[in-house]
Amino acid sequence: MNIPFNITRTAHLEFRVTDLERAKAFYVDVLGFVETARDKNRLYLGGYEERDLYSLVLRKADSPGVGHIAFRVANPEDLQHLAKLYEQNGCAIKWIDEGFEEGQGKALRVQDPSGLPIEFFHQIAQRERLLQRYDLYRGAHIMRLDHFNCQVPDVQKAYDWFTQKLSFTCSEYTVSQTDKLWATWLHRKQDVHDIALMNGIGPRVHHGGFWVNDQLSVLKACDVLAAAGMVSSIERGPGRHGLSNAFFLYLRDPDGNRIELYTGDYIIADPDWKPIKWDINDPRRATFWGHTPPPSWFNDASLVEDIQTGKFIPTTEPKQKDRPDFVT
Amino acid sequence: MNIPFNITRTAHLEFRVTDLERAKAFYVDVLGFVETARDKNRLYLGGYEERDLYSLVLRKADSPGVGHIAFRVANPEDLQHLAKLYEQNGCAIKWIDEGFEEGQGKALRVQDPSGLPIEFFHQIAQRERLLQRYDLYRGAHIMRLDHFNCQVPDVQKAYDWFTQKLSFTCSEYTVSQTDKLWATWLHRKQDVHDIALMNGIGPRVHHGGFWVNDQLSVLKACDVLAAAGMVSSIERGPGRHGLSNAFFLYLRDPDGNRIELYTGDYIIADPDWKPIKWDINDPRRATFWGHTPPPSWFNDASLVEDIQTGKFIPTTEPKQKDRPDFVT
Amino acid sequence: MNIPFNITRTAHLEFRVTDLERAKAFYVDVLGFVETARDKNRLYLGGYEERDLYSLVLRKADSPGVGHIAFRVANPEDLQHLAKLYEQNGCAIKWIDEGFEEGQGKALRVQDPSGLPIEFFHQIAQRERLLQRYDLYRGAHIMRLDHFNCQVPDVQKAYDWFTQKLSFTCSEYTVSQTDKLWATWLHRKQDVHDIALMNGIGPRVHHGGFWVNDQLSVLKACDVLAAAGMVSSIERGPGRHGLSNAFFLYLRDPDGNRIELYTGDYIIADPDWKPIKWDINDPRRATFWGHTPPPSWFNDASLVEDIQTGKFIPTTEPKQKDRPDFVT
Amino acid sequence: MNIPFNITRTAHLEFRVTDLERAKAFYVDVLGFVETARDKNRLYLGGYEERDLYSLVLRKADSPGVGHIAFRVANPEDLQHLAKLYEQNGCAIKWIDEGFEEGQGKALRVQDPSGLPIEFFHQIAQRERLLQRYDLYRGAHIMRLDHFNCQVPDVQKAYDWFTQKLSFTCSEYTVSQTDKLWATWLHRKQDVHDIALMNGIGPRVHHGGFWVNDQLSVLKACDVLAAAGMVSSIERGPGRHGLSNAFFLYLRDPDGNRIELYTGDYIIADPDWKPIKWDINDPRRATFWGHTPPPSWFNDASLVEDIQTGKFIPTTEPKQKDRPDFVT
Repeated sequence: MNIPFNITRTAHLEFRVTDLERAKAFYVDVLGFVETARDKNRLYLGGYEERDLYSLVLRKADSPGVGHIAFRVANPEDLQHLAKLYEQNGCAIKWIDEGFEEGQGKALRVQDPSGLPIEFFHQIAQRERLLQRYDLYRGAHIMRLDHFNCQVPDVQKAYDWFTQKLSFTCSEYTVSQTDKLWATWLHRKQDVHDIALMNGIGPRVHHGGFWVNDQLSVLKACDVLAAAGMVSSIERGPGRHGLSNAFFLYLRDPDGNRIELYTGDYIIADPDWKPIKWDINDPRRATFWGHTPPPSWFNDASLVEDIQTGKFIPTTEPKQKDRPDFVT
Repeated sequence: MNIPFNITRTAHLEFRVTDLERAKAFYVDVLGFVETARDKNRLYLGGYEERDLYSLVLRKADSPGVGHIAFRVANPEDLQHLAKLYEQNGCAIKWIDEGFEEGQGKALRVQDPSGLPIEFFHQIAQRERLLQRYDLYRGAHIMRLDHFNCQVPDVQKAYDWFTQKLSFTCSEYTVSQTDKLWATWLHRKQDVHDIALMNGIGPRVHHGGFWVNDQLSVLKACDVLAAAGMVSSIERGPGRHGLSNAFFLYLRDPDGNRIELYTGDYIIADPDWKPIKWDINDPRRATFWGHTPPPSWFNDASLVEDIQTGKFIPTTEPKQKDRPDFVT
Repeated sequence: MNIPFNITRTAHLEFRVTDLERAKAFYVDVLGFVETARDKNRLYLGGYEERDLYSLVLRKADSPGVGHIAFRVANPEDLQHLAKLYEQNGCAIKWIDEGFEEGQGKALRVQDPSGLPIEFFHQIAQRERLLQRYDLYRGAHIMRLDHFNCQVPDVQKAYDWFTQKLSFTCSEYTVSQTDKLWATWLHRKQDVHDIALMNGIGPRVHHGGFWVNDQLSVLKACDVLAAAGMVSSIERGPGRHGLSNAFFLYLRDPDGNRIELYTGDYIIADPDWKPIKWDINDPRRATFWGHTPPPSWFNDASLVEDIQTGKFIPTTEPKQKDRPDFVT
Repeated sequence: MNIPFNITRTAHLEFRVTDLERAKAFYVDVLGFVETARDKNRLYLGGYEERDLYSLVLRKADSPGVGHIAFRVANPEDLQHLAKLYEQNGCAIKWIDEGFEEGQGKALRVQDPSGLPIEFFHQIAQRERLLQRYDLYRGAHIMRLDHFNCQVPDVQKAYDWFTQKLSFTCSEYTVSQTDKLWATWLHRKQDVHDIALMNGIGPRVHHGGFWVNDQLSVLKACDVLAAAGMVSSIERGPGRHGLSNAFFLYLRDPDGNRIELYTGDYIIADPDWKPIKWDINDPRRATFWGHTPPPSWFNDASLVEDIQTGKFIPTTEPKQKDRPDFVT
């Protein structure tokens, strides 16, 4: 297989929010995301470790949801190769002008075979990195975007697409009781994932995962949110995932969009890494410490936009009906 | 009020366990309690910071429960004064010979007005303190016993007894919707509590609280228990209590006896400390981060022994029927 | 011994600073002390855990140094008993009017037998406690004042005074090669010390020790100071003391006054606590990890004011010439 | 540039030690390295996160030093390509039989243009990964080998070799006062480095860097070493590097070989990452918190073996005489 493009990593995520100032209070004032730019309808946010101008876009809309998720490619000409690949496979594509998103070069949006709205770009304005500006750290010390987690009705099909056509590699995966693929963690950069694909009603984006440096940053997020009167945003955790080994916390923003604070997975530098297999009902898979996630964590996820109309893509039921035993 | 004795602090707790080796695997092998002595029917355990020979006694019995809870007094002659006080108030007392418990001097046991089996002693064998033997630290790095938490049917009566007769001081308390005392945190040593008294079916001991040095020790307890196949011992947490501000984890030993790992409360050095009042339905009181405790945490507690017969003291229903809103 | 007063704890410290705004930038803007009051010549600061209006006073003066150190007493009438004691022992005393220091009741200042300027008071305005206002935490998360550390020429004499006349108790101490008392850690509240007395040129105040909740707060102090361009304020540490077991960091404010960030000692609830003895040349005493302190840490300390004239008390050489081996 | 091989990452390091049992006490008993294999003259050790059989080899020898450093390649046939490259450039090479090192396939050793003894291999026996066996964690919780740090007389030449011939990429670098390359951090896996090359007497290996998960593991290493009577092994730190942002501790094993415990750098997933430039005299470069490293840290490093004779390679003085200002 000779793939003429190089997707390097997860780059940004666009959430629809109904009230920009209310969203800003949550993300910036309390959690400590850095506001790096804004235009009439959008706030651009980032973490302390990043150089890209932003990794989270909050866009004013009349309902919550996800506008698109974005990956960076290594070279400008990769975009043409990707456009060709998606078109050849019957997917809608759309070119985005330079500067349409703040500081970003020409970009390609596609509706991928699972219906996910994905953006690819190469050029993005750089900003001063704040990694060592400890005097500016606030809130939960958000460092960088780490990954996306998406629900799709046919996870095997999505897995095949990402691994065979886009050259993603599997780090860990979950199988159903009948040994069919139920969820998969795929990466381009060398950690556990850039994107996780889970069997479920889809296409939907379950959450965007943001990296924090240590477990205490996760605990501090809880303390800060509770002190600020935003305790209801804490949906699940803190706890440890068996799969990925990460220490996690799931939060719902004021519109219900979900983010994960995530730390403590591991580096994968071997191209021949043997993926770790988990059974769907291994009690340590989802929560190493045995806590049952709340039903909302299994049921709720964000609708995603049609890249052409801006309306939500209709969802379909998952092919596999298996759910973990411990969900009612 | 002139009180002729000086109770200094929480000293030890005796759990009944049905299988000493199974209990040892939980407390010593996994959590890292230090085994300091044993006799035919008892294991004596302690933490790294303590000098007393032990702070937790595991006694072989045919069912779980609590044998007694113990406080240390400042002077040997305090025991006589305490015996007199309890007898004058119609409570059963019993003298325990020196050496009956390993390394301990003559002790007084009483069945207090709430029915709790309480031991007082002054003399206890000292052991090498392991505080700076970091090379020996294991498991959850248990430092010392901190407090007892008990359920009593008449919390106002128990509060009056402990504060007026034994000179305990209140640090924080909870009131019911009708502004009646619902739970109270009382101390002799200068932290939030030596004993908490909660309205509930009683007399029962809800848990013994052991101090760990930091939040990561609590998280490590979860990791170690999960890795050792004891994930079912994790009942509630980790999380932060609003009341006391402590970071907590509740564990059930293989017999169902409950301990808390506890850290991060505060020192109270002012005799005129103004107690902090909490409403029973303040959502941040029990769990600052908003998590609902499992029903077992509210319903289960250990029966306690009659100091004379060794049989369990019958329990009665609490006088107040209020329960926090969020418990079903 | 019947002592008719009750000193409860370390309460506040007054530093002389030559530039209030420059000092504020260090203490408030970078380290995160809370500014709670100010008057023409003084800034009043405190930590997140405290209820007293302040625990650190920065007073405008033409040179650095210490105005006074202060202890709180349990009852207003304790002040008269203390005045009598000091007067009977030939010490200068001075009554301070209510409100002279912001929010404070009538106070007694004394020049103690070692020449230290000490204030005693009972009444102090209370403020909202910020312990659970995690949304306001900044910098190094300073929680509360913990202790004073003073150098005196005759440490045995100072020890006798504090223990016999003021009822302080010894937690740990250091002896010289000839087994004479070289330094002593004394407490009224139940942790390792309210005041440490070290053999040295005196009377001088070596540092005020402020409590932080965990080791990471100490490390964060270093990061924040370095990021803010104040790296030269870091004098010694981070490291662990053998004596007290505390994790420490010593900082010099822009005027050279010294504070310690301190965490991880232990509770002492037993009146019959057997003090821990250290040899002056035990390499683990001062720095458990073996690092040599810089000469400035041994040589520099703050001059203290004459309570009557406001001029500095002349210092004298210490009676004992022993110094730890590893200091040049 | 078309490079027909793929070096994936740092793989292992071989230290010469004069007493295997004494070395084991340091690495295994105290620091918590996992012993995974041993033969007559060698102990094979690893970390909790690794799957490879080992990442540190301790080989019995009559003096300390470094046998070789090793990188893994992606494919078995990469070894032939590398052999050809080194031979064409006049470097000695040597083929190592499968199984000569425990569990390892056929390997290539070279004496690289700087004189460093480097091994390349593809095949290595896998062991059970202990990442989630928290019940087995001990000591400093060593997770994995992260990097090598080497001193070479001509750093520009070594840099050119690694970047142009081996396709390493630069993350950060230091320049002298005359703006010449003074030190460079190079990586193949996506973190700050697999190998750092510093101007100095060489060829020598300065240290092997092992990853730990958090800052508290580094502090714990100090506590554990001090408690075990090995305080003299602590050479420098704990502290933060400005360059790489890592939190570090440098240790000398009983033979004087140096390791670093290292955590908190960052991921580099962009192939067009713009390297960070530091001036040699930027005080925050080496130690962000301003501490001066001890002279031994600058002067001492391990001699390296001639891959053919096993004798030490003679060293030469560095081309650049610049040293940081703050080293005497």
